[in-house]
Amino acid sequence: MDPDFAKLDAYLDETDADGYLIDADSTDSDQYYLAGFDAPDPFLTLYDGETHLLFPRSLEFGRAKRESRADSVERYVDFDHAELVEEHGTEGAVSHVLAGFLDSYGVHSVAVPPRFPLRTADGLRDRGVEVTPDTDGVITEIRATKTDEEIEHVRAAQRANEAAMAAAEELLRTASVADEGHLWFDAAPLTSERVKEEIEVTLLRHGCSLDETIVACGSDAADPHDRGSGPLTAGEPVIVDIFPRDKTTKYHADMTRTFCKGEPTETVAEWYDLTERAMDAAFEALEPGATGEDVHDAVCDVYEAAGEPTLRSDDRAETGFIHSTGHGVGLDVHELPRLSPSGGELEPGHVVTIEPGLYDPEVGGIRIEDIAVVTEDGYENLTDYEVSLVV
Amino acid sequence: MDPDFAKLDAYLDETDADGYLIDADSTDSDQYYLAGFDAPDPFLTLYDGETHLLFPRSLEFGRAKRESRADSVERYVDFDHAELVEEHGTEGAVSHVLAGFLDSYGVHSVAVPPRFPLRTADGLRDRGVEVTPDTDGVITEIRATKTDEEIEHVRAAQRANEAAMAAAEELLRTASVADEGHLWFDAAPLTSERVKEEIEVTLLRHGCSLDETIVACGSDAADPHDRGSGPLTAGEPVIVDIFPRDKTTKYHADMTRTFCKGEPTETVAEWYDLTERAMDAAFEALEPGATGEDVHDAVCDVYEAAGEPTLRSDDRAETGFIHSTGHGVGLDVHELPRLSPSGGELEPGHVVTIEPGLYDPEVGGIRIEDIAVVTEDGYENLTDYEVSLVV
Repeated sequence: MDPDFAKLDAYLDETDADGYLIDADSTDSDQYYLAGFDAPDPFLTLYDGETHLLFPRSLEFGRAKRESRADSVERYVDFDHAELVEEHGTEGAVSHVLAGFLDSYGVHSVAVPPRFPLRTADGLRDRGVEVTPDTDGVITEIRATKTDEEIEHVRAAQRANEAAMAAAEELLRTASVADEGHLWFDAAPLTSERVKEEIEVTLLRHGCSLDETIVACGSDAADPHDRGSGPLTAGEPVIVDIFPRDKTTKYHADMTRTFCKGEPTETVAEWYDLTERAMDAAFEALEPGATGEDVHDAVCDVYEAAGEPTLRSDDRAETGFIHSTGHGVGLDVHELPRLSPSGGELEPGHVVTIEPGLYDPEVGGIRIEDIAVVTEDGYENLTDYEVSLVV
Repeated sequence: MDPDFAKLDAYLDETDADGYLIDADSTDSDQYYLAGFDAPDPFLTLYDGETHLLFPRSLEFGRAKRESRADSVERYVDFDHAELVEEHGTEGAVSHVLAGFLDSYGVHSVAVPPRFPLRTADGLRDRGVEVTPDTDGVITEIRATKTDEEIEHVRAAQRANEAAMAAAEELLRTASVADEGHLWFDAAPLTSERVKEEIEVTLLRHGCSLDETIVACGSDAADPHDRGSGPLTAGEPVIVDIFPRDKTTKYHADMTRTFCKGEPTETVAEWYDLTERAMDAAFEALEPGATGEDVHDAVCDVYEAAGEPTLRSDDRAETGFIHSTGHGVGLDVHELPRLSPSGGELEPGHVVTIEPGLYDPEVGGIRIEDIAVVTEDGYENLTDYEVSLVV
């Protein structure tokens, strides 16, 4: 994929910086996006209209020349590294090598991402280079708007996600209910861990990987970031939140369903209906020109009208709707734009989750999450999975 | 696990800093180690003899209070966040909140990791806080020396690793050889991707995850970081490098074997024997008091005596032994200590890989890698897997 760096050119013009500089390994998605290269150890990417890579060692050099879209690929040894180590020591040499690299392109001031490494910045500043961190990260902002190719990558990951969700739902459906309501499968208690394993193996078979997945029941589910553990129980909502990454394209999908084996309590059933309504309200608000805050407000309106606490009504709330409505999804599973009080204007090509939910340790948790892309005249929901509580 | 922070106390005394500060999510292993808490979004950890966590939002607050070993857990709202946003805007408020948080513990100067985010540092400096990045990261240095519990975590991950390697080897062994030497399995060409899937599913079934694995044949294998792709061929060396992470403990293992289906060429057979000898030489040098450089030199000596290029003899070498001899393994798959020209003194409790190898696009690649722990009187090899080329 060839990203459109017109916005980056404009940013450099505006900020009067000679170049944009990233120092990170490619698990930093800005680095992967700008360099077009995947490497496990940190390297430098300088953008000054062209893209230049600098590697500490030779290890990635040959592959970077073959695989990256960079206009030039160099190593520390190309900038008198050995001599500089003798003069300044191993650590001291680095800032001299980096300044030499920048100078060779006539770059004396750089804009950098907000999380640019301090030590590198201090070293460059000591060598007289101006280093200015930007706010959200202009590359992160550029990445928020997806090309058609990127949207297809998310769509493909979402198909794998649906296969994994179906495998999880099927496990819950075929489980039997033993004493004290514990679910039972294959002559053993059905645990969160067992369902996660099924999800993960299904994703692997579909070319996706993931670090984490959430299968949380009972009071575990009352904490939106609890991954869940132990035996699952009938009559309690089980939150299944899956956010796989396609191993080839590196793009993510994200979806949550909440299931209840057997009859839910009245409160859980009410919360589920309310959350479906909150979701509908969010989708009604989702269109280009609206802000992420508008979409978030639509969800808060529904919950607050029903008497549920939200962080909007009480910024210390620990029960109720205690997270934002959604986030961008792409190379990172959490990226721009934000569907939250600080969410800015939405644009066609933004890929976002809509994920209202309610939480209380006394009740458990409910969350429903779809993934959608903002289009010229509204949105397209990329999710193809039934919204239904009881299995 | 309760880490021993005596070294951190000593470091703060030496550097005359009031505290040590990390701003990162818990995929940053220093953060995970210091905070004792796993969270997907960035948060702050301040160590000043006690450990204090600060979260932007409420989302992780309850779980952090329950799960982390921190002495205190706070949120932005606990430091007049709303008022500061009104006064300074969303972005501007952050440095005021952070400075207020530090001030509440009487902290006015902090040491930080070398990759501490620049924007946070600049914000704190603007508020009059002294921020000094350290060189390798003192927490990273502390993490290099493992407790017995951590060594058991690595050992357990290595058992899973051996099961996955056996599954990969078994696939290669049972494959048949079709036209033009292509390997064939289950009525389809046996590819790198198919072997990786087998490895990954085996690891998942053993409670481990991994982002990447290397199954590289032919010229792919000549690049030490190429993950490999496409059909595998008889008579060519296949590098299988597996570095799983235990999902529960988060500790890694790391092992490489090189296999050849059928008869290798004379060069490949010679390279393999030479690499076994280089490995033996490295292990002979591995003991407390020796340096990482000594161990690396032992490997270079063997290769150079046999006329193979190394980065020691030519820092621009692109064939031969073109990486370092090994690295520490723990929460990160690559961590301190280094077994390289810049490798310092080895200590009991250091867990390291020994992984000599030779590479040339004309020949392919050979690498053999074990993982071992430095002990009081030498080392213990944690690897239990035969070293043998032909399958």
